[in-house]
Amino acid sequence: MEFTNYLERKRQDVDRFLESVMPKEATAPETLHKAMRYSLFAAGKRVRPILAIAAYEAIGGSSPAILPCAAALELIHTYSLVHDDLPAMDNDDYRRGKLTNHKVFGEAMAILTGDALLTMAFDLISRPADDKRLDPQAQIRVVQELSLGSGHAGMVAGQVADIEAEGKDIDLTTLEGVHRWKTGKLIRASVRIGGIVGGATDTQLEQLTGYAEEVGLAFQIADDVLNVVGSREELGKNANTDASRGKKTYPTFFGVEGARKLAEERVTSAIRHLQDFDEKAEPLRNLARYITTRKN
Amino acid sequence: MEFTNYLERKRQDVDRFLESVMPKEATAPETLHKAMRYSLFAAGKRVRPILAIAAYEAIGGSSPAILPCAAALELIHTYSLVHDDLPAMDNDDYRRGKLTNHKVFGEAMAILTGDALLTMAFDLISRPADDKRLDPQAQIRVVQELSLGSGHAGMVAGQVADIEAEGKDIDLTTLEGVHRWKTGKLIRASVRIGGIVGGATDTQLEQLTGYAEEVGLAFQIADDVLNVVGSREELGKNANTDASRGKKTYPTFFGVEGARKLAEERVTSAIRHLQDFDEKAEPLRNLARYITTRKN
Repeated sequence: MEFTNYLERKRQDVDRFLESVMPKEATAPETLHKAMRYSLFAAGKRVRPILAIAAYEAIGGSSPAILPCAAALELIHTYSLVHDDLPAMDNDDYRRGKLTNHKVFGEAMAILTGDALLTMAFDLISRPADDKRLDPQAQIRVVQELSLGSGHAGMVAGQVADIEAEGKDIDLTTLEGVHRWKTGKLIRASVRIGGIVGGATDTQLEQLTGYAEEVGLAFQIADDVLNVVGSREELGKNANTDASRGKKTYPTFFGVEGARKLAEERVTSAIRHLQDFDEKAEPLRNLARYITTRKN
Repeated sequence: MEFTNYLERKRQDVDRFLESVMPKEATAPETLHKAMRYSLFAAGKRVRPILAIAAYEAIGGSSPAILPCAAALELIHTYSLVHDDLPAMDNDDYRRGKLTNHKVFGEAMAILTGDALLTMAFDLISRPADDKRLDPQAQIRVVQELSLGSGHAGMVAGQVADIEAEGKDIDLTTLEGVHRWKTGKLIRASVRIGGIVGGATDTQLEQLTGYAEEVGLAFQIADDVLNVVGSREELGKNANTDASRGKKTYPTFFGVEGARKLAEERVTSAIRHLQDFDEKAEPLRNLARYITTRKN
């Protein structure tokens, strides 16, 4: 219950910050800003920003300095959804319970909306620092972390590998590789960015990274399970799409119960990486548990 | 002649640097890296990187510290071409004399290739500094400059405005606005980044900005003229596409000769902004002239 409050409070912090920095719909070019807001303010869970905030707090951080970085992570995540949903990619009509971006604004605008969200992530991180903000040294490390986690050696690579695996009889190692890139790298970056902004030592950053890698896999396994057992209403998008696409997932290999168990093992292992952390890391531990028990 | 050598030398510097940092085709995922290289190494003129280098040299810079930033500008430019050419956007089959990215690799891969190139631009700028490189303060200013120039308040905004203007009976002010965003902002960022990396004073940066804004418009007017008078062989892409799309351009308003004259006026004005600069700014002056006399 207490943790549900924590999630809700942090979600509101992130949303308030995003609201304060996103150009208003009336700002030219209006269609672009309308389309950016449409997908960004679509009841997202804000998992990546909250992971960054919780990691930041776990090592003692407590200022709003983390918010631009947390918001940047959500911009990156949202751009990836907008592009993934395009007809040339997954061709999805619904996302977070609403029509997908290209269904409302057209394909050209959805491509550009993704490009703009992606670019704005780096704008947010690099804005001139004021009292509450990062020093340039930390700012540039966050830029590096985010670009590596989301680009050709991270999330985009995973997207490519995912497309190439579709319809193929892939083995478990390949599946795990896809996930490690596609979901894992950005989750890893989220947690590490929290650590970097909080001034983590090398050892702490290593422990956070270990936690993040396990959580990333748990997150994706849980997603695969939800795709099988979740309803359209709970997910806010079409359910059971993996099976109908002939896509191999964790439930294909282990069954729903087997996959659930695997995810739980990952969570246990994630939490073990945090054993040197005190009670300030409790939200981070709870996040790992939440990720496998969520309903959407 | 001497300036042609300068251009060629700088183009080689940029290409060598790009070659050294771009993942090899055999790096997984192979298709992605093949597609990134396909569009990046396609006989581009490297105008934006060379503008950055020339601005850097104009204020006395002489180290390779500028190269990652120059390369990042080319990555951004290339990503914008890959996305612009997509069927949902301009639907072009040829670019720089070769089939467009999506004609070779498919639409999904072209979208992801653009995303990866865009993201890698920020990776290049933010890599940990060694002796020859930028200090974090300058690095983060470059990130800010590049994200503003290429995102929702810059190049992407121009692309949106351009799409929205197509087929409409727009006036000259609207046309100039489109250009100022679509081409102007990234050219402005290129020159300013050269200044920032070189340690320009506020006054110098202002003068460079004045130069860049005029050059940006001259560049686009010259592009419009080339679209009318250039041949497919010279351009490496289909010629006269604007007219066949009913697109209003500078030649529509002023005729080819009138537009040429306008571009020359912009060049003269651009060079006037550099009057406090010494002979080290000569390449920058020549670049302004080159931009209106080039054949592709």
